Amino acid sequence: LTFDLVLVGFGHVGRRFVRLLDANRTALESGGLGVRIVGVATRRHGHAYASRGLDAIALADRVELGERVGAERGVRRRSGAATAFIRDAGRRSATAARQGRLVVVETTTLDIERGQPAIDHVRTALDCGAHVVTANKGPVAFAYGALARAAERAGRRFLFEGAVMDGIPIFNLVRDTLPGVSITGFRGVVNSTTNYILTAMESGEPFGAALAAMQRAGIAEADASFDVDGWDAAAKTAALANVLLGARLTPASVAREGVAGVTPARVKAARAAGRRLKLVARAERAGRAVLARVAPEELPGDDLLAGLEGQQNALVLQTDLLGEIAIVQRGSGLTMTAYALMADLITIARQCSPRRRAPRARR
Amino acid sequence: LTFDLVLVGFGHVGRRFVRLLDANRTALESGGLGVRIVGVATRRHGHAYASRGLDAIALADRVELGERVGAERGVRRRSGAATAFIRDAGRRSATAARQGRLVVVETTTLDIERGQPAIDHVRTALDCGAHVVTANKGPVAFAYGALARAAERAGRRFLFEGAVMDGIPIFNLVRDTLPGVSITGFRGVVNSTTNYILTAMESGEPFGAALAAMQRAGIAEADASFDVDGWDAAAKTAALANVLLGARLTPASVAREGVAGVTPARVKAARAAGRRLKLVARAERAGRAVLARVAPEELPGDDLLAGLEGQQNALVLQTDLLGEIAIVQRGSGLTMTAYALMADLITIARQCSPRRRAPRARR
Repeated sequence: LTFDLVLVGFGHVGRRFVRLLDANRTALESGGLGVRIVGVATRRHGHAYASRGLDAIALADRVELGERVGAERGVRRRSGAATAFIRDAGRRSATAARQGRLVVVETTTLDIERGQPAIDHVRTALDCGAHVVTANKGPVAFAYGALARAAERAGRRFLFEGAVMDGIPIFNLVRDTLPGVSITGFRGVVNSTTNYILTAMESGEPFGAALAAMQRAGIAEADASFDVDGWDAAAKTAALANVLLGARLTPASVAREGVAGVTPARVKAARAAGRRLKLVARAERAGRAVLARVAPEELPGDDLLAGLEGQQNALVLQTDLLGEIAIVQRGSGLTMTAYALMADLITIARQCSPRRRAPRARR
Repeated sequence: LTFDLVLVGFGHVGRRFVRLLDANRTALESGGLGVRIVGVATRRHGHAYASRGLDAIALADRVELGERVGAERGVRRRSGAATAFIRDAGRRSATAARQGRLVVVETTTLDIERGQPAIDHVRTALDCGAHVVTANKGPVAFAYGALARAAERAGRRFLFEGAVMDGIPIFNLVRDTLPGVSITGFRGVVNSTTNYILTAMESGEPFGAALAAMQRAGIAEADASFDVDGWDAAAKTAALANVLLGARLTPASVAREGVAGVTPARVKAARAAGRRLKLVARAERAGRAVLARVAPEELPGDDLLAGLEGQQNALVLQTDLLGEIAIVQRGSGLTMTAYALMADLITIARQCSPRRRAPRARR
């Protein structure tokens, strides 16, 4: 079975995804999963569609050289352009959509105010009969319930493993491997930039220098407030709470305190006392509501979250049947986010042929 | 769809499984999964079969009062009795087997010498057209490859999530949520009794007293050597290596050093130096071979495995695409093992109706 992919957003993550797919093409095909990229919409380098497939590697190369992917203008030149592009691609790939083998891969950047236009992208794609795979936190953090219902009505999948902890399977873990288990709450460290900054400050590095290092590495957002003021962590907390706890949160409804007010003296004093300061994301049920919070917390040295160095992330799930389960991400990087998209794609393909074995990549 | 279950072994785990199923009956049924127990084979309290279903709760109560579950003799009275029971049940439930809704639930105790008779139980069940779910490490530690192939030939599932880390999804995590990822090695703490003993010794408790506490709690095996000499950890290491790394190990081919030679002085000295002694299980590829080892290791205090208290377990997976992923089990107990069996059962049921939502238990 060959899946036709429409890529909406073609930045670092989207392009790495294309290269990862290409590197694993043989393994995927031997597992029965063919992939063809039929559409690419960029923000500033135009867009392209060809129902017989595009050479996405060549397009990624072009974008990296600053060239355009198509004669048409980039979709961000006017509001709604990407939505129109998706609708058009859905029409031109109507057969693939009808056969359940059209997938829209959404990797535009997060808008922390409203989660748009990514939410519209997801909705439009589902309306066209496409599955949706995204690494964007916005749709899950702002509109999970509505989009999940839209996907169910459409008989299509809406998957977003890359939205939290990159390729580490959080959502898939709970959905696929913990059937019958109820999650009652969670706490975790989910923002790499602030954990790197706090760790660096322990050894005397100034706040600004640590932040700049993360920005140079492409880990921190260009707008420092997004990481430093806890917005990224709040968006991930809302996403996790909405999916795992059935909450109806948005990033703004997560009580939020960032690390901007944390002084080197405080970090060092904690460390000297055998404790560590971490930006902790938490949520728990409180009756029918869900309370969620992001704030710096001073943790005992033997707390699992206290042990996270640099860019590491971890999530501790509280469950009814299994007590606490923690999952720790020790590596990081763009490939992991790209992998999340590929894993979601494989999940969709498996559903279409449930008896088929998972392809094993790069063995 | 109603699944017919044949329970082979009806000890603590088997009986807890029956009670867990019963507690979740409504949730399972609302998820489309009906369960009926048609056969129970005990070691010392006889066996029973009824194609229309047994009252398994009543049978569990009887066993706990020391009474028999059936007029016939227990299957351990003579060698091969349980295998004959499975074959007989397979014949009497031939329709369910043909329809792929017969499941043999194997919970006999581990034989560390050869993994028998559990391997024969699994093989016979698959031959009869039943799926197999087990919490027994033996079949996976001794014969994973052959049994996986037998299951594939039979078109049935052979699942064993409960064999390692109770209900924490290790095997299902890798199989279902890490498609395309190659595991290159692992290290972990997988035996609760020895971790409890080492932790207790740090605070001055003598080895013997700590072991006795675990035996009273029903966590340690009656034969202390099984835990203390690292046999349990070696069996789990072989199981993990066979499944995750494609190895062909048995417990005896895992280099093994237990904790019997560990003195309180050594444990305390490590602790005083900010380090901790842990019984670490490891395996890694070495060319086409897989090297596996269980031995006490002195770990730096900030190592994730060093942070494990009491009966906690953890496994750190080394992967190609995602760096290191750790999963930590912080709770423990019989219910978690029973849950593993239920989760495997739900996995089988999902496969038969892949579009069906997972039942959510006890909400």
